[in-house]
Amino acid sequence: MKIFHTIKELRETLQPLRTQTIALVPTMGNLHNGHLDLVKKARANADIVVVSIFINPTQFGVGEDFDTYPRTLDADVEKLTSVNADYVFAPSVEEMYPILPTNVQVLSGDISKILCAKTRPTHFDGVGLVVSKLFNIVQPNIAIFGKKDYQQLAIIRQLVAELNFPIEIIGAEIVRADDGLALSSRNQYLTETERKHAPLLQKTLQNLANELKTANFADFDNIIAKTIDNLNSTNIDNVRFKVDYLEVFNQNLQPPKADDKGLVILTACYLGDKTRLLDNLEFTRN
Amino acid sequence: MKIFHTIKELRETLQPLRTQTIALVPTMGNLHNGHLDLVKKARANADIVVVSIFINPTQFGVGEDFDTYPRTLDADVEKLTSVNADYVFAPSVEEMYPILPTNVQVLSGDISKILCAKTRPTHFDGVGLVVSKLFNIVQPNIAIFGKKDYQQLAIIRQLVAELNFPIEIIGAEIVRADDGLALSSRNQYLTETERKHAPLLQKTLQNLANELKTANFADFDNIIAKTIDNLNSTNIDNVRFKVDYLEVFNQNLQPPKADDKGLVILTACYLGDKTRLLDNLEFTRN
Repeated sequence: MKIFHTIKELRETLQPLRTQTIALVPTMGNLHNGHLDLVKKARANADIVVVSIFINPTQFGVGEDFDTYPRTLDADVEKLTSVNADYVFAPSVEEMYPILPTNVQVLSGDISKILCAKTRPTHFDGVGLVVSKLFNIVQPNIAIFGKKDYQQLAIIRQLVAELNFPIEIIGAEIVRADDGLALSSRNQYLTETERKHAPLLQKTLQNLANELKTANFADFDNIIAKTIDNLNSTNIDNVRFKVDYLEVFNQNLQPPKADDKGLVILTACYLGDKTRLLDNLEFTRN
Repeated sequence: MKIFHTIKELRETLQPLRTQTIALVPTMGNLHNGHLDLVKKARANADIVVVSIFINPTQFGVGEDFDTYPRTLDADVEKLTSVNADYVFAPSVEEMYPILPTNVQVLSGDISKILCAKTRPTHFDGVGLVVSKLFNIVQPNIAIFGKKDYQQLAIIRQLVAELNFPIEIIGAEIVRADDGLALSSRNQYLTETERKHAPLLQKTLQNLANELKTANFADFDNIIAKTIDNLNSTNIDNVRFKVDYLEVFNQNLQPPKADDKGLVILTACYLGDKTRLLDNLEFTRN
């Protein structure tokens, strides 16, 4: 496995390989089994697997955790070797952004302004920008994104469709710990007690999905509001949940209609003071 | 020469040719010798020459000439055959934009908000969008743009640099009629008398450039204002000029500084009631 820090070296290496199928797995590093699952999916679908590791400053807002986001390149490289990635692209901020802020912006419209964007209003502008850059740098045939960042995946699918990137996007199912918690680099911010009770979030989504499967569409708002209230008033071992959002959309992130069958519950929820966890659950109405 | 109306057919044709150098010449059709010069440049620099003909609705504002812009595909195809283009890509609006307005926007920052953008505020947003799409559809190694749309060329160079499109941009010199008028599809909107006096615009830029080459930088504003006044008060054979803008920038479209050597005068000027002509002139200060 080779590691590149410059665009030029990566491109020169990939150029003669372009008759083969190239997969890109974009990450911010600090890799866990969720990421490695994406790499395995890439391995199964392509001849050449490129993993990018880049903590993208333009998707972090002021006061967010850009500076403290865990940087663990050596451990990441070891893990990527173990799952047979071919190339790691780990550029510096200066390599990716000679000028900051950029003049060019890639904006994603309505679906970039809901859910996570309510507390992170420019987050998906940074995502659209860096993903466009990575697509042009690597020029993959396939790119793999996890469904844990469900809104991000929807935004990237839209970006590819509307800008005609010649790239197949594969969405990979969420990888969870045995107790149901979705794997995330931010889980390490949790205290031991918080970690113990964190699976309540996924359990709550499962119960809600079961209820919504057969509920009248007219009752959705009340059922969802009750679920949010329950989470917000939970207090076990002094662990408190505070719902940032918990909403139901159809699987294209459009507001659900009464006759939509495929829906998704999406949530961002604070556990304790500093950890904001994402989770979601797709379900099909009866 | 083959003509394609769908993205799929064009991509399938280009796919096996990607070991060769592919050049793209984006146009809105109604081709004149200026465009054909771009195609010749492409021919000289690449193995495969693709010319796109697409009147892009997203770069026209409300009340502009999208509906009346000349559509002359048969004549265009004949001209492109004569200069040995390989492929013409002439998609429908629906093929390029299944959804309008798009959700995704590609914005170009400060240099998309000056000059032409003062009267056409969303013009370059449409240009950035369609050029990004064409780049992803054709995936050329080279793309050729004329310097007549100087601001557009600067915006595209910035787009390529900041989004890392793996494309070399070649800017081609303006092609002019024998009397100095820059060739443009919109010249056909001119009356015979207007056409006769239209070269005054380029002549004015030449005189201004000669003056600015040796002028004190502190005098630039006054000299430029005087030039604008002169043009606006011109009345020959009842032909009137009305300056939309006439400004001097450095060749990256940044405001000029006293020690900048390479500068450019850019103008948009109405002749008569309905014709807005663009012209520009690069010059070097002594």
